[in-house]
Amino acid sequence: MACKTLLAAGIAAKFQDEVREGVRLAVEQSGGVVPTLVGFLANHDPAAATYAEWTGKACAEVGIKFDLRKVERTQLEDELMAANVDPSVHGIMIYYPVFGSSQDQYLQNIVSPAKDVEGLCHTYRYNMYHNVRFLDPPTNAKKCIIPCTPLAIVKVLEHLHIYNPMLPYGGRLYGKTIAIVNRSEVVGRPLAALLANDGARVLSVDIGDVLEFHRGSGLQHRQHQVMETTLTADEALRQADVVITGVPSPNYKVNTSLLKDGVVAINFSSARNFNGDEVKKRAAMYVPSIGKVTVAMLQRNLLRLYAYQRADVEGAKAKQA
Amino acid sequence: MACKTLLAAGIAAKFQDEVREGVRLAVEQSGGVVPTLVGFLANHDPAAATYAEWTGKACAEVGIKFDLRKVERTQLEDELMAANVDPSVHGIMIYYPVFGSSQDQYLQNIVSPAKDVEGLCHTYRYNMYHNVRFLDPPTNAKKCIIPCTPLAIVKVLEHLHIYNPMLPYGGRLYGKTIAIVNRSEVVGRPLAALLANDGARVLSVDIGDVLEFHRGSGLQHRQHQVMETTLTADEALRQADVVITGVPSPNYKVNTSLLKDGVVAINFSSARNFNGDEVKKRAAMYVPSIGKVTVAMLQRNLLRLYAYQRADVEGAKAKQA
Repeated sequence: MACKTLLAAGIAAKFQDEVREGVRLAVEQSGGVVPTLVGFLANHDPAAATYAEWTGKACAEVGIKFDLRKVERTQLEDELMAANVDPSVHGIMIYYPVFGSSQDQYLQNIVSPAKDVEGLCHTYRYNMYHNVRFLDPPTNAKKCIIPCTPLAIVKVLEHLHIYNPMLPYGGRLYGKTIAIVNRSEVVGRPLAALLANDGARVLSVDIGDVLEFHRGSGLQHRQHQVMETTLTADEALRQADVVITGVPSPNYKVNTSLLKDGVVAINFSSARNFNGDEVKKRAAMYVPSIGKVTVAMLQRNLLRLYAYQRADVEGAKAKQA
Repeated sequence: MACKTLLAAGIAAKFQDEVREGVRLAVEQSGGVVPTLVGFLANHDPAAATYAEWTGKACAEVGIKFDLRKVERTQLEDELMAANVDPSVHGIMIYYPVFGSSQDQYLQNIVSPAKDVEGLCHTYRYNMYHNVRFLDPPTNAKKCIIPCTPLAIVKVLEHLHIYNPMLPYGGRLYGKTIAIVNRSEVVGRPLAALLANDGARVLSVDIGDVLEFHRGSGLQHRQHQVMETTLTADEALRQADVVITGVPSPNYKVNTSLLKDGVVAINFSSARNFNGDEVKKRAAMYVPSIGKVTVAMLQRNLLRLYAYQRADVEGAKAKQA
């Protein structure tokens, strides 16, 4: 069987179209308030600068105003706090690393949930892990923001029909075993939780151990559970229907011979974690990178936060009138 | 001049006496509600087990009930949430590392501010960095919890009369240069902020750079500011009136020949970062470790949180009556 290779640009296209149309309507309905994303660049990392430039281009393509602010790392917290309360700013993102230490996680929590397009503040992380989908129960008008890269991978999996629409919402990955080679707090662990919340059995592979995330037997559990396993990384790869990799090293390559025939292979690392020629002989579908889908999700999150902020503005006006 | 060596036990004694008396009064006034600290041990690290045992003994000595709960790391978050809402638990602490990754910082934020004796959740960290000293302005009945180890070092500096009581509160370190060799989020950076908030010029030494924390010229600034420097670690040590070390490695030793005559040397690492014989020839005062003061601060924080919880219980009763 031939492997189908899917590029991020193709998957992202429909989301970009949706965002473009969303921006057009937003500007029209607000009488000209252009959705505005502020990106903070507080390092001298060329990769971050490239990503920032790329965000800017992608925003220009869909009509979002992107304002890149280069600041000193020692000034970043003050700048974030100013942007948090500036009504002309609808979304905020930070190009990491800033300090390259756990101080960066402190900075994630300085961004207001009202403007956190990356979904990395504790409120969104907590809600995601606990499968809390709305910020304002019981009204449920404001959906929680989901971190961009994990969300992009969910959208890729939907595009590939790994999510089965015949199954009930919240259980559409039931029956699937998905290995994720990465357990970072920014992508690997939230992704494991999201996929487990949607019914998958997730094998989370990190240096040293494999954890299993699942919903328990059946679909009755409200949120995922995590358990220790004695599996090796190789055993996890052997069992997986879908393998998702995010190892930020050019030296790491998945051993293709371990994979099931007909596996689905997705890489979100900037390094290529699969040997393309090899994996195409084994996989049913292969997605070598997802960056453009991630940026589309960033924009989607921005539009959502913009809508909530506009609703608050209009609500306040209506109250006054 | 002979160096005065001060041991943590001696410095901790008066705080232990205060806590013991505070516990006695608390039990008496509440009709027998014993302040209760729950420690969660979710690793197999012998150092953590020893620290837990030590906490237990120190609590027994002052009349605090210490309840050590050994749990699986995959169950810790659920256990923390249960303890957060259990009225018989007044304080919660976690023996780190749990996952040994940035997931541990997520766990810090799961502990309710009402019970966070370690002061490591975002609310307390944010308030400390921003020099916000009360949880409930403008009432100002509830003081913020300050992380135990930084607080212990402040108390050590007060004990050594480095804080000058002739100066106004909030500026009692004005004129002092203090080098801190450690910039962790748990000790080094919060300590730098606290000391700068109190008027010191702090040189924060990390691998690769030295940052300066200060209050700006005079005492007019509400909170500390941070600026880059081109100082080397050696230059920072040369300028320091007080050197505080926290490098968790037996191989790191401060080069004593760099230090000022009459320097004050304080080590909070479990490793000995000063060569004792050498530093005693140079320093005016030397504190080789501070562990017992840290545990006393943990207990002090517990008593404070106990008092706030009791006040809430009594307030609710009064409202009902």
